[in-house]
Amino acid sequence: MSPKITTELLKQLRQVMKSPKYVQEPVQAYIVPSGDAHQSEYIAPCDCRRAFISGFDGSAGTAIVTEQHAAMWTDGRYFLQAAHQMDNNWTLMKMGLKDTPTQEDWLVSVLPEGSKVGVDPFIIPADQWKRMSKALRSAGHDLVPVKENLIDTIWTDCPQRPCKPLITLDLSYTGVSWRDKIVALRSKMAERKVLWFVVTALDEVAWLFNLRGSDVEYNPVFFAYAVIGMNTIRLFIDGDRMTDPAVREHLQLDSTLDPEFKIQVMPYGSILSELQAVGAGLSPKEKVWLSDKASYALTEAIPKAYRYLTPYTPICIAKAVKNASETEGMRRAHIKDAVALCELFNWLEKEVVPKGTVTEIIAADKAEEFRSQQKDFVELSFATISSTGPNGAIIHYKPVPETNRTLSVNEIYLLDSGAQYKDGTTDVTRTMHFGTPSAYEKECFTYVLKGHIAVSAAIFPNGTKGHLLDSFARSALWDCGLDYLHGTGHGVGSFLNVHEGPCGISYKTFADEPLEAGMIVSDEPGYYEDGSFGIRIENVVLVIPAETKYNFKNRGSLTFEPLTLVPIQTKMIDVNLLTQKECNWVNDYHQKCREVIGAELERQGRHEALRWLIQETEPLIRVQ
Amino acid sequence: MSPKITTELLKQLRQVMKSPKYVQEPVQAYIVPSGDAHQSEYIAPCDCRRAFISGFDGSAGTAIVTEQHAAMWTDGRYFLQAAHQMDNNWTLMKMGLKDTPTQEDWLVSVLPEGSKVGVDPFIIPADQWKRMSKALRSAGHDLVPVKENLIDTIWTDCPQRPCKPLITLDLSYTGVSWRDKIVALRSKMAERKVLWFVVTALDEVAWLFNLRGSDVEYNPVFFAYAVIGMNTIRLFIDGDRMTDPAVREHLQLDSTLDPEFKIQVMPYGSILSELQAVGAGLSPKEKVWLSDKASYALTEAIPKAYRYLTPYTPICIAKAVKNASETEGMRRAHIKDAVALCELFNWLEKEVVPKGTVTEIIAADKAEEFRSQQKDFVELSFATISSTGPNGAIIHYKPVPETNRTLSVNEIYLLDSGAQYKDGTTDVTRTMHFGTPSAYEKECFTYVLKGHIAVSAAIFPNGTKGHLLDSFARSALWDCGLDYLHGTGHGVGSFLNVHEGPCGISYKTFADEPLEAGMIVSDEPGYYEDGSFGIRIENVVLVIPAETKYNFKNRGSLTFEPLTLVPIQTKMIDVNLLTQKECNWVNDYHQKCREVIGAELERQGRHEALRWLIQETEPLIRVQ
Repeated sequence: MSPKITTELLKQLRQVMKSPKYVQEPVQAYIVPSGDAHQSEYIAPCDCRRAFISGFDGSAGTAIVTEQHAAMWTDGRYFLQAAHQMDNNWTLMKMGLKDTPTQEDWLVSVLPEGSKVGVDPFIIPADQWKRMSKALRSAGHDLVPVKENLIDTIWTDCPQRPCKPLITLDLSYTGVSWRDKIVALRSKMAERKVLWFVVTALDEVAWLFNLRGSDVEYNPVFFAYAVIGMNTIRLFIDGDRMTDPAVREHLQLDSTLDPEFKIQVMPYGSILSELQAVGAGLSPKEKVWLSDKASYALTEAIPKAYRYLTPYTPICIAKAVKNASETEGMRRAHIKDAVALCELFNWLEKEVVPKGTVTEIIAADKAEEFRSQQKDFVELSFATISSTGPNGAIIHYKPVPETNRTLSVNEIYLLDSGAQYKDGTTDVTRTMHFGTPSAYEKECFTYVLKGHIAVSAAIFPNGTKGHLLDSFARSALWDCGLDYLHGTGHGVGSFLNVHEGPCGISYKTFADEPLEAGMIVSDEPGYYEDGSFGIRIENVVLVIPAETKYNFKNRGSLTFEPLTLVPIQTKMIDVNLLTQKECNWVNDYHQKCREVIGAELERQGRHEALRWLIQETEPLIRVQ
Repeated sequence: MSPKITTELLKQLRQVMKSPKYVQEPVQAYIVPSGDAHQSEYIAPCDCRRAFISGFDGSAGTAIVTEQHAAMWTDGRYFLQAAHQMDNNWTLMKMGLKDTPTQEDWLVSVLPEGSKVGVDPFIIPADQWKRMSKALRSAGHDLVPVKENLIDTIWTDCPQRPCKPLITLDLSYTGVSWRDKIVALRSKMAERKVLWFVVTALDEVAWLFNLRGSDVEYNPVFFAYAVIGMNTIRLFIDGDRMTDPAVREHLQLDSTLDPEFKIQVMPYGSILSELQAVGAGLSPKEKVWLSDKASYALTEAIPKAYRYLTPYTPICIAKAVKNASETEGMRRAHIKDAVALCELFNWLEKEVVPKGTVTEIIAADKAEEFRSQQKDFVELSFATISSTGPNGAIIHYKPVPETNRTLSVNEIYLLDSGAQYKDGTTDVTRTMHFGTPSAYEKECFTYVLKGHIAVSAAIFPNGTKGHLLDSFARSALWDCGLDYLHGTGHGVGSFLNVHEGPCGISYKTFADEPLEAGMIVSDEPGYYEDGSFGIRIENVVLVIPAETKYNFKNRGSLTFEPLTLVPIQTKMIDVNLLTQKECNWVNDYHQKCREVIGAELERQGRHEALRWLIQETEPLIRVQ
């Protein structure tokens, strides 16, 4: 990996920072955040502006360029990668280290008095703008919105914004029509006494209209906004996607609908002016509902007194609770996914053990190949983490030719992968040894397994927030002085983003919403030893009601049902470290894998993989 | 309990709300918060203004009086009590229920346009002022500071502010001199580049100067403020307390000290004007450090640009980590406390079982009597919760003649009590049965015990926040559909407040600071069945380093050591519900009680109580 040479680019950027063509007054600093205008986690190539200007293409990072300096803030996952990808023009700001200044503090320390700091108001979320603007103002500087994105002005070969065809999802997938979703949304709006709701997150637009796209890799979304009034629906979307007869039919664009369900289609770029018009037409006490993470530009379009901002939108919360059709779809998707992984692991055992010719990349490609043979496969749900030996300790590893290792009988192999199927999204991690694991490797694996089981089998009251379960996943590791430095689980979309809010399981007490039946999260504790190996055991699990002996205050209880049904390698388990209850959990889980996945392998005529499954699901026996 | 008749008082209050003698412009609403000027949890009688105006004397509640209405916000603990104590002039606002408006929303709904809402700026914390002021302003109203407290103007027989003698603590108790504490504080100030630190919390003033008082019941504090500069120390305190030769000697008031350790003693009431003078004399970049919970009045004395506000002060954090002298003092205090409780429980068994003449109040008084026989006993650390049968289910119960029940062989008895000794503060809960508990009572008790042990025996990495341990205390209850509706633990002071920040163990993710060795918290899970019984098992525990097999990232691990050494009634334990590990924990704990408390009972010649202790600490035997 050689760094990107950015001297010329930075020179150009510093020129446009002073050019009256783009800025009313020169800006002494320009902020280039990671995100797109929808605060997406995964972004399209045309939105990779921070990577373009710096060379650093990790998923998180903020660049700030002043007349003298260029600095990049990123977190511990990316210190090494950023250092490799950036040239000497850049200073790496290691977030989380004690001596690293915040962006605000750094700006204050380097800027001349009374400076202007520019940022694209469409990219910066309103809550972040507020924080930064306040800090700068108190030091005598100004944060100013620069309408035209300054990176775009110098990015001559910037790729076009994708505008791919849409997929319509019928009731058998979604369970609820878009009209009923609009009705439910309007009732939430009426409850909160707001007249308008602005949909800014891409997965929320996709979910609301039962549409999917492929504008962003791994996330089946498309670039669009929506503005929902009590009697109007406006969809802001580009391209000829609305000429597709299937889409027109799905959205009933040509039928004589009740006017309150008539969708007005408008250009993507007109959202700001339309929203400003909405804002200008409001009477006192009329409110507009936005996410507090919506862009500063859209938030500012509504005068402050008329804004109703919440951390989670009603769509985000409704989307998280899967209905029966979505749950059944997720079950089907996970069965197909397990079939593909049984095929893969069977193939790996045949290839790795005697031949030793399988690399991390070959294994990842093979996993995709097996998945793509399954019905309704669309694409992967994220870049496959296929890592062996020391690469497994790099939590967000993705194999590239420079790092590609060959799987062997001497190292632990970690595969974290998933797919988008038209009926659901998967995300599964299995850790295996193709030879004989050491006692220490088995010990660590077993602690991780105990943590996985502790979460999966936990019973907890209705209304419990996921962060209260995080320590269950760590307790066995903690007892021995071990731990892992990531959260335990994230929400999973239904043929949507593999990471979605508002629930999760993490020691970080972000404002997660309480878990309720129908929510779907991952359960993925791990253990990582730098330079040696990584272990992670991940299932996607469904929140379900739990039967309990008593029922305190009639609150009811919840627990999890694993949707992922892929054997957990028993060779890696030190069965004497398990309690009888944990041992029973593993055996019951494997019995279910045999029954459900076995039947599907049989149906698909995959007899070798079936033999592998049977062999891998032999019951554990605990010696008392 | 008959309600207080407040018709006349409210009439008077409404008059002064319009009187130019007290308000520049009439206020249409007046807020009466619970607290005092130091945001204390326990307050002096002269500060019980909310109780005076409404009759409701629970520990939490906010009254708001408008021209038409009088409303009281309080939480679930106090719904019944508030309803009993207030007359028909008052509307009870049940916090935590869905339909209960916030104070801000309610004010907006009842006030005429452009109203002024008054509040005593010394009583309202700055963070609360900010939130309320913003909400009111956005609805066209104004929150205004009313300098003279309007309740005080109508409270003709208001008790005087207490001004009791001070106790000086020497190094054998505190481990660190007040001079060294000032040096450490100044070094924290230098780190953050602040020139002044304002000490507003009463326990912080007491801790900093190694002084104690008795101005507030149960809390050994005294009314004072302090302002620490880099070269000056100002102590704001009233009365002739500074004429006490012991105090003068302790504070070295008459010696020719280095000027930076010379304490200037000033009247308590001059804090505002002195602070305003400090504020007026600041140059750019000079900052003053305050808690963000300091009163609005003191916060406003410093111009906004010069304020440095943090949720926890450096004193609060330093105070929480007990040094060797404090830890040894706490150990001694807990040994004495255990002696008193062994005496009490031995006495109860002799009195309750055959005679049935002991009431909750008699038992509480007897507990105090036994405690007062111990060396360096000062007072109780909170009002004793002595409750039997259904009264045990009232979490913050305090026996009064109207509710006083007689202990019997048929009901569970819960005693939550503690004391202030000159060497430490105690807080312990034991739940006992003097007859034969039912299988169900034993089952519930055993789940609570499992939770207690899960926290007490937990091993966790250095830097873990207490809220991550809360679910360990609930897991056994949750498995059966049970739970308890309070946090699991709170910080405990060292001959200081029995509740102190910044650490704790709670599902409420308040901004608790990470646990570190030397911190002291309570571990007190419970289970409460309305109308039947209450169970709670509480020890005070010390955070200590833990030895672990491995040491991930060299972070080190922590665990707890119980300081409380009072037998847990084995009669209440269903031993078959315990794991072998839990059974061993109980036996080890009881062995330690025998050794440590047994030796002290022997030394004090308390032979009957010693016999009781031996009998109560017989090892449990688990049938496999």
